[in-house]
Amino acid sequence: RSLDLAVIPGDGIGPEVVAQALRVLQTVASSSDIDLAQREYPLGADHWRATGETLTEDTMHALRQHDAILFGAVGADPRSTDIPSGLIEREMLLKLRFSFDHYINLRPSKLLPGATSPLSNPGEIDFVVVREGTEGPYVGNGGRLRADTDQEIATEVSLNTAHGVERLVRYAFELAQTRRKKLTLIHKTNVLVNAGKLYSRYFNAIAAEYRDVQTDYLHIDAATIFMTTDPARFDVIVTDNLFGDIITDQAGAITGGIGYAASGNINASGEFPSMFEPVHGSAPDIAGQNIANPTAAILAVALLLKHRGFEAEGAKIEQAVEKDLAQHIGETRSTDAIGDDIIAVLTGE
Amino acid sequence: RSLDLAVIPGDGIGPEVVAQALRVLQTVASSSDIDLAQREYPLGADHWRATGETLTEDTMHALRQHDAILFGAVGADPRSTDIPSGLIEREMLLKLRFSFDHYINLRPSKLLPGATSPLSNPGEIDFVVVREGTEGPYVGNGGRLRADTDQEIATEVSLNTAHGVERLVRYAFELAQTRRKKLTLIHKTNVLVNAGKLYSRYFNAIAAEYRDVQTDYLHIDAATIFMTTDPARFDVIVTDNLFGDIITDQAGAITGGIGYAASGNINASGEFPSMFEPVHGSAPDIAGQNIANPTAAILAVALLLKHRGFEAEGAKIEQAVEKDLAQHIGETRSTDAIGDDIIAVLTGE
Ligand SMILES: CC(C)[C@H](C(=O)O)[C@@H](O)C(=O)O
Ligand SMILES: CC(C)[C@H](C(=O)O)[C@@H](O)C(=O)O
Repeated sequence: RSLDLAVIPGDGIGPEVVAQALRVLQTVASSSDIDLAQREYPLGADHWRATGETLTEDTMHALRQHDAILFGAVGADPRSTDIPSGLIEREMLLKLRFSFDHYINLRPSKLLPGATSPLSNPGEIDFVVVREGTEGPYVGNGGRLRADTDQEIATEVSLNTAHGVERLVRYAFELAQTRRKKLTLIHKTNVLVNAGKLYSRYFNAIAAEYRDVQTDYLHIDAATIFMTTDPARFDVIVTDNLFGDIITDQAGAITGGIGYAASGNINASGEFPSMFEPVHGSAPDIAGQNIANPTAAILAVALLLKHRGFEAEGAKIEQAVEKDLAQHIGETRSTDAIGDDIIAVLTGE
Repeated sequence: RSLDLAVIPGDGIGPEVVAQALRVLQTVASSSDIDLAQREYPLGADHWRATGETLTEDTMHALRQHDAILFGAVGADPRSTDIPSGLIEREMLLKLRFSFDHYINLRPSKLLPGATSPLSNPGEIDFVVVREGTEGPYVGNGGRLRADTDQEIATEVSLNTAHGVERLVRYAFELAQTRRKKLTLIHKTNVLVNAGKLYSRYFNAIAAEYRDVQTDYLHIDAATIFMTTDPARFDVIVTDNLFGDIITDQAGAITGGIGYAASGNINASGEFPSMFEPVHGSAPDIAGQNIANPTAAILAVALLLKHRGFEAEGAKIEQAVEKDLAQHIGETRSTDAIGDDIIAVLTGE
């Protein structure tokens, strides 16, 4: 059994949290006889500064050969002004998602024992958001007429296809069947009527094929209310690219912070390598201080392993993370120390 | 001094909460010598069922003659299938906002003493969202190609104009100057680059004219995190139509429920009547039971009075609501009873 990984540590705290995630992965791989190969790609803001490049065709071609990609975080320090805002995010993260057809952006949310929710009555939060990853308002389709004048018109076009929505919704129903069998569609069908109709049409049609899955619908605005007052009501959520972006950050917040939120950018058809990353960004303000929480990156490795068929190994990491958290409630630990502690749980030391 | 009001009670709990709001208004008007005229417009789902009409040209013309509009809530019971989903909302609420150029959608959020936040550590929540009301993804510009086939493409076009953004941002800076002098722009500039540039351009340019106002920027996803972990950080928020829709529902939730959230749809140029409404919807599931909370509708009347220059009278209602809430912590009261109690505070009985 082998696993050939591309690793993109990226910017800011990316390399720090990825280092711990790789240590954990190596620990599990050697104890489970996984033949692990990995190649690091030094991409991101510094690479752009040095070369003017984000992702070349050559790099894309090389990345494509791997079984999966582990991604840290990219994004320049907003205090630096030499890189246009959002450029690295779009030309790296979004380019990878779109080029490798990562149409399932999978984002589990669980209130781990030992994590502190800012909600006074969180209940048992344990849901997965199935966010669309390759279309919607993220397609970069829009423009500026009379730019920079007082007659400017700026547009953003959300593109939604039957192809994209059908495979997304089907994946979500499949996932719901393996869980508590409840699926919620989140959209804004009363205002975004065209995209809304497309989502509703497939949601209702596919629901008829999965009669054991209970379904409901929430507008995105109402969904933020339930996320606050009764997040335990959710099992699987299916939603578009932008609403998924918004609701998963809120989900991270109510489960104790995005230091625990991992995600998979999945090409479920298997044509391209899938990519796993913490939901958090490059956090330049705390970079280089050995204080970033590597848990989300470590959980991203767990998702990666499960995706590549190493179910038991992925579960082992998740259990080790939960155990570690419960053992260190309220402690402030360094990035390294959290890595050490989780490895200690894994090796039973 | 006079006030000529159009009243649209609407559907579901709309008429119930509006009835109490009008009682409160009458109480304040008679004790303050405001010459109050009001005309009721029986519009909404039932009117559509009876006539097939939402808002005719004649009705629009009649509404336009009033000083202001008090709006309850519209929206058909989702269990009824005779009205297409969202039709009443779009053809009534959105039509009024767009036709009467309600470019400022003003939504104050305050954790009132006596209200219970679902956050364990809410802090002193007291901010106002200045939401754009006449453009963005709400313009109804989009379509369906190959509709209802497996090759469907559905689009939604967000239109943003210099005209719309400039007046919005300027209003927000003016408002911030009368408060704690802090203004946050919420957008998604790293992905929605065209609209994002337009918002950032006016935000930065106008900031230079209001040097006493401290500014910052948050992506909408990050904003939902701060709304959970540190909502007291916000003073005035300025944002687009869709992000404003989402963040104000979350704001309602963290301040104890949208039973307390009022909003103004304001045509600040004074060309058209402004419209005031509770943020909540028609809530058909609890309609007709005399259990809906009329507080948001009553606070909408306070906003309306202030907007029409009756500052002292508006403040009086706000104070009465706060006092009433503090006197009845944790009590379950009927719709009528809350109206009675607030009137009792106002009349000092
Ligand atoms: C960095 C940004 C482009 C990205 C997104 O909006 O998808 C991030 O917020 C995320 O959720 O992964
Ligand atoms: C009913 C709906 C069209 C409306 C909106 O999206 O603006 C509502 O959610 C609101 O916030 O007033």
